[in-house]
Amino acid sequence: MSLLVVGTVAFDAIETPFGKTDKIIGGAATYISLASSYFTNKINLVSVVGDDFPQESIEMLKKHHVNTDGLQVKKGEKSFFWSGKYHNDMNTRDTLVTELNVLADFNPVVPASYQDCDFLMLGNLTPAVQQKVIGQLPKRPKLIVLDTMNFWMNVALEELLATLKMVDVLTINDEEARILSKEHSLVKAAQKILKMGPKTLIIKKGEHGALLFNKDQVFFAPALPLEDVFDPTGAGDSFAGGFIGYLAKTKDISFNNMKRAIIFGSAMASFCVEKFGTERLIGLTQKQVDERVQEFIDLVQFEIELG
Amino acid sequence: MSLLVVGTVAFDAIETPFGKTDKIIGGAATYISLASSYFTNKINLVSVVGDDFPQESIEMLKKHHVNTDGLQVKKGEKSFFWSGKYHNDMNTRDTLVTELNVLADFNPVVPASYQDCDFLMLGNLTPAVQQKVIGQLPKRPKLIVLDTMNFWMNVALEELLATLKMVDVLTINDEEARILSKEHSLVKAAQKILKMGPKTLIIKKGEHGALLFNKDQVFFAPALPLEDVFDPTGAGDSFAGGFIGYLAKTKDISFNNMKRAIIFGSAMASFCVEKFGTERLIGLTQKQVDERVQEFIDLVQFEIELG
Repeated sequence: MSLLVVGTVAFDAIETPFGKTDKIIGGAATYISLASSYFTNKINLVSVVGDDFPQESIEMLKKHHVNTDGLQVKKGEKSFFWSGKYHNDMNTRDTLVTELNVLADFNPVVPASYQDCDFLMLGNLTPAVQQKVIGQLPKRPKLIVLDTMNFWMNVALEELLATLKMVDVLTINDEEARILSKEHSLVKAAQKILKMGPKTLIIKKGEHGALLFNKDQVFFAPALPLEDVFDPTGAGDSFAGGFIGYLAKTKDISFNNMKRAIIFGSAMASFCVEKFGTERLIGLTQKQVDERVQEFIDLVQFEIELG
Repeated sequence: MSLLVVGTVAFDAIETPFGKTDKIIGGAATYISLASSYFTNKINLVSVVGDDFPQESIEMLKKHHVNTDGLQVKKGEKSFFWSGKYHNDMNTRDTLVTELNVLADFNPVVPASYQDCDFLMLGNLTPAVQQKVIGQLPKRPKLIVLDTMNFWMNVALEELLATLKMVDVLTINDEEARILSKEHSLVKAAQKILKMGPKTLIIKKGEHGALLFNKDQVFFAPALPLEDVFDPTGAGDSFAGGFIGYLAKTKDISFNNMKRAIIFGSAMASFCVEKFGTERLIGLTQKQVDERVQEFIDLVQFEIELG
């Protein structure tokens, strides 16, 4: 029983109304791994970095139960680098720099020791690379979750649609759901997307929470109202990490358990945005996670007796 | 024990991507009264119309337990008229026509028979008119709820601030909360607004639900994900009507009961937007209301055992 996380491990430079960072570590797989580490201690990472990536960050991941045997370190090459600037509303951002570097010809290799994989989290990457990972697993995982983005809908739609047929859960944001389905109503968008392959769809709405759909049911998890969102980078990946980490811990992939998993995912996202980069996801305690989840319970629970 | 509803009773002409209406009846007090009529049968209306307002619409209100003794009918004058066109996203609209007519010099008169008022709902109107109503009540109601809009923040801020000191609950939307508080974060906005007078604040976020704040607590109610929002006109007023109607029925103004009231308010708003104008709020059954509330329960309820 293990969780396989595939995605970028990278450098980010971030500017928000609250300040500015130099190059700090980021990347989808970094956020997913850290968030899931509060739920499971069998996390296997497949990714690629250059030899500019600090050994101490790899050690930090190992301390969070992340097996880095599948992290390729390319001699003489540079890690993926993204730089962005958030607007005052924190909902929109401009990308300032994207340097693919090692990502340009990333050929994922799943180590033999990883192949007993029950939960697979495919972070945002070229759909072809995501497919290659699925193709290397001798046994189909119990659950495959795929994250993607609007960029691939524009430049690699056919590949993306083929990949969607191979997965169980898709996570995208509201804008992406509208693009993929060509429907404005998220209910109609979900109905269409659920016919493209995934049996379960999560639509992330940022500060407005997240919706979980299957063919017959819908569940809504709010985002926690925060005094300040300091840096939204990685929130969606932290959400995905908490979600799949909780499922891997409980080994229950029913809709009812996915409801709980989405609340844990939302809790991890709410931590993520409180500081720059991955800072807030490092070294949390179980008590802090439980207290945060209790805040979500208090936020939405009510009792009504009908009839 | 009665509910006093003050606000506009008017004509609207509405255009949405789904179609276009001629003059139909609308107005804040109309929506509030209809929505609250599913919870209480002692509704007293204070408003004004011209003699162009159809008697059959007044009869329709009476059938919904609305006492119209306080509805002034001005001979030879015309009713308030608003016309608007919604954009494709349904979140924004252009006002095409605003004819104040009888509203221009509206002097509200609370009939003697209304003065045993325990719940007062002040729909969106000039703050000076809202104050005049409070001034006419010999005994302070158990609960005063005030709705207002950004327009009054621009043209009558001092009057609005004075009125806020006289009420218990304020309902505004997220944009208005930001304007009134000069804070982008809704948590910070709520903290500031709760120092302006109201002990309780409801921030309406349209399709993204509503937040209920007091000094120490916060509660979130989602909006129901709908296949189509047909016409958003009156949704906020239907929400307010369901909210105060439920409180008037249960006579309990605790924070815990306000949570339930917000769910009932959200249910009434979800009906409102399914058809043009007030159409969907007329002649609902108790069973339909209960089934809708059950959908809200199913949408957000989950069970997590911590620690």
